[in-house]
Amino acid sequence: MNAEIVAVGSEMLTPERVDTNSLFLTNALNNLGVEVVSKYVVGDHAERLGAAVRLALSRSEILIVSGGLGPTEDDLTREAVAQALDRKLIYHPEIAEALAQRFARLNRKMAEVNKRQAFVIEGATLLPNDRGTAPGQWLEDSGAVVMLLPGPPHELKAMFERQCLPRLARIVPQQVIRTIELRVAGMGESDLDQLIAPVYKKYANPATTILAGAGDIQIHLRARCDTLAEADALLAEVAGPIELLLGDRIYSRNGDSLEVVVGDLLRKNHATVSVAESCTGGLLGERLTSIPGSSDYFVGGVISYSNELKIELLGVPPEILAEHGAVSKETAEAMAMGVRRRTNSTYALSVTGVAGPGGGSEAKPVGTTYIGLANAAGVEVLRRQFIGDRARIRSFASQIALDLLRRRLAHVA
Amino acid sequence: MNAEIVAVGSEMLTPERVDTNSLFLTNALNNLGVEVVSKYVVGDHAERLGAAVRLALSRSEILIVSGGLGPTEDDLTREAVAQALDRKLIYHPEIAEALAQRFARLNRKMAEVNKRQAFVIEGATLLPNDRGTAPGQWLEDSGAVVMLLPGPPHELKAMFERQCLPRLARIVPQQVIRTIELRVAGMGESDLDQLIAPVYKKYANPATTILAGAGDIQIHLRARCDTLAEADALLAEVAGPIELLLGDRIYSRNGDSLEVVVGDLLRKNHATVSVAESCTGGLLGERLTSIPGSSDYFVGGVISYSNELKIELLGVPPEILAEHGAVSKETAEAMAMGVRRRTNSTYALSVTGVAGPGGGSEAKPVGTTYIGLANAAGVEVLRRQFIGDRARIRSFASQIALDLLRRRLAHVA
Repeated sequence: MNAEIVAVGSEMLTPERVDTNSLFLTNALNNLGVEVVSKYVVGDHAERLGAAVRLALSRSEILIVSGGLGPTEDDLTREAVAQALDRKLIYHPEIAEALAQRFARLNRKMAEVNKRQAFVIEGATLLPNDRGTAPGQWLEDSGAVVMLLPGPPHELKAMFERQCLPRLARIVPQQVIRTIELRVAGMGESDLDQLIAPVYKKYANPATTILAGAGDIQIHLRARCDTLAEADALLAEVAGPIELLLGDRIYSRNGDSLEVVVGDLLRKNHATVSVAESCTGGLLGERLTSIPGSSDYFVGGVISYSNELKIELLGVPPEILAEHGAVSKETAEAMAMGVRRRTNSTYALSVTGVAGPGGGSEAKPVGTTYIGLANAAGVEVLRRQFIGDRARIRSFASQIALDLLRRRLAHVA
Repeated sequence: MNAEIVAVGSEMLTPERVDTNSLFLTNALNNLGVEVVSKYVVGDHAERLGAAVRLALSRSEILIVSGGLGPTEDDLTREAVAQALDRKLIYHPEIAEALAQRFARLNRKMAEVNKRQAFVIEGATLLPNDRGTAPGQWLEDSGAVVMLLPGPPHELKAMFERQCLPRLARIVPQQVIRTIELRVAGMGESDLDQLIAPVYKKYANPATTILAGAGDIQIHLRARCDTLAEADALLAEVAGPIELLLGDRIYSRNGDSLEVVVGDLLRKNHATVSVAESCTGGLLGERLTSIPGSSDYFVGGVISYSNELKIELLGVPPEILAEHGAVSKETAEAMAMGVRRRTNSTYALSVTGVAGPGGGSEAKPVGTTYIGLANAAGVEVLRRQFIGDRARIRSFASQIALDLLRRRLAHVA
C-alpha cells in the first residue's frame, strides 16, 4: 500500500521552516510496510490544498493531511478536504460544548472562533485531541483512507500513535519489518561506501540507507518480509558481511551514540575519564556530559586554549611548547598526562590541533590534530589530518578522541 | 509571481531525510519578490513527477525541479519533464564529448551511462555545471519558466545563483526587498510574542517570522516595496517600536550570533574571559571557541564536573560545598573567582546547576542553575529556573551566561 502526506501551513513555505512531521509519519508507515510515495507542502490555500488531496487520492490508498485544523480564518483544511471529496461539513454542538468545557477548566472563556473546530466532514470519525483543542478526523472514501491531523508535532504524534496506527494495522496487509542500525566512527563516507556497497547493492530488501556526519556514519538496514524468521535471516545475510568488513570500526549495533557507548564501557570498567582540550574548546566535555548520569565516570578537565593555561593548569613543560609547538605529539602527550595527574582519573584524553581557518602552516596545515590518551601505563598519541571547515574539524577531532577511548576500553573489557 | 518547487529522489521519502534545497531556493526567490506557494517531494517515478509538473504549471509562473539529472536508470527527470511538457528529448553529442573530456582530465574513463546526461529537452537552454557532471536546463513554456537543477546542494546553489537568478531578474517585475533580523537572548517565546505581537500583527508587509531556540529568539522582518526609501521607512515603522519594547534584550541587529557579539565586545575592550563549567560540561567553552580567532580573548578554563575538581583546580572551599552544595550561589561565586584567579583573565563565567533528569530536590528542582560573572571588582550571580530536558537546560544556561557577559561589556563600552 502507498501513502501520501500533505503538510498545510504558509509558515512551512518560508526559508526557515521544514516539515518534520512527515519524517515521524514516514517512519511509522514504513514500519507497517507502507511506502510514502509523495509529500507536499501547501500554504493556507483551499484550492491548492484541494488539488493536492485529489491528486493523492487518484493513485494512493492512504492520505495524511497535517495542519490547518485550528480555529482561525486561516485554518481551512476541514473545508478544503470536504470540498475535494464532495462531502458536506456538519456542525457537532457536542464538540463545541466539550471545547467550551476544556477552556472553562483552564479558567478561560472560549472565543467564538473555536466553534469552527466543531465541524466534521460527513461520514468522518472524530479523533479526540488530549493535547490541544483541534480534534482530528478519520474517513474512508472509495477504498482510500484519509486522516486529518493537527500540525503541532506533540499533538500529531500522540493522535497518530494512539488512534490512527491501530486502525491502520487492521487495514494494511500484515508484514514484518526488522531493522538494524550500525554506527561507525572515524571513516569517510566514500571509503565506507566503497567497502560495503558490493554487499548491500545486491539487495533491494533489506533497504539500506547511509547517513554521514563528521566522522560518524549510520548504516540503516530495513528488511520487510512475511515472517519474523525470514526478516531476521535476510538481515543476517546482509549485515553479516558488512560487520565482517567493518570490524571494530562499528561502535554500536542498536543506535546508541558514541558518547553512550563510551560511558557504558567506562561504567562497566569502574573507570573514570578527564579531558584536556585545546582546539575543541570544551566540545569533548560537552559530549561526554550530554548523557544523563555521566558524573559516574566523567570527572571534568581543563580547556587549555592558551599556552599559559597548558603550562599553569596542566604542567606542560614550557620547553616542549617552545620546541615542538602547541600543536604537536609532545604537547598532546603532556596535556593528557597532565590532566590525568591533576584529576586522578583512570583515563585522560587530550586534543590539540589547528581548527582554522587561520593558524595553518606548511608543516601543520589547517586540520592537523593530535589526540592523546593516557592511563597508568603511559600515553598514546594519534596524528590526524582532517578536511573541512572549523566546525567539521572540531567535530571530527572529538569523534576520533572518543573512539580512541572506546577501542581501548573494548580491549580491556 | 508564484513559484513551485519539486524535489526528486526516493531517498528524500525516507524517515531520515528532508529536502533542504527548497529553503535556499525559497530565500532566493523571496528576495526577488517571488512567493513559493507549493513544494513537492516525489520519488524517482516518472508518472508522479510528471503529475507534479503539470499541476504546478497549471497555476504558477515559475517551476524548479531539483534532482534526478544523474547518469543512472533512476535519474528520469529529463524524460519525465519532457513528456509532461509534450516535448522531445534531443541528444547533443557535444555534451557527451565535454563530459568525456572532464573524466579524462581526472584520468578516468567515462562510463557509457553518462551519455544519458547529454539529452536536452527540445527548446531548452543548457546550464553548465562546473561542480559536477549533471548539466541543468532552463526552458520557457507558454508563459512559464521551468528550471531543472542538480540535486547536490553545492551544485544546485552555484548553478542557481550564477545562471538562474540573473535570468529570473530579467523576467520578474522589479521589487525592493529589505530585511532586518533582531536577535534576543534569555526570553521565552510566548513572553516575547505577547510583548511585540500588538506591533507586528498590524502589518502583512513587512512579513514577520519568529524563530525560537533555547533562550535564543530570532525576529525576521521582510519588507517588499517599489522603492528602497519605502522599504526602509516601512521597516523602521515596525522595527522601531519592537526595539523600544525589547530594549537591551536585543543582542544583535544583523544576524550575528551571541558568541560573535560577545567576542567582538571582548576584543574591543582588550579583555579576556575564562570559564568554570559544571552542568554545561564544556558547552560554554565550545560556543566561545566556535568563532575563528577566539584565542584573541578566550584563554580557557576548567570543566569542574566533580566536587574534587572544584576544590583542586578552582580552589572552591570544601566547607562551601558541604554547607551550600555544589549547586548554590556560593559555589558559583567561588568557581568564577577561582577560575579568574587561576587564568588571570579579565572576566570569568561560571555555571553550576541541575541539568537532570536526575539530581533534583524540592529546594533545587531539575533546571535550577546558578550563573556567575567575576571581574576585578567582584562577582555577580544569577539564579535561574529552566524548564525542559537536559539539552535544553544546558543550552539555556550557556545562553544566559553569555548574555550576562554581553550586558556587562555593553555597559563598559
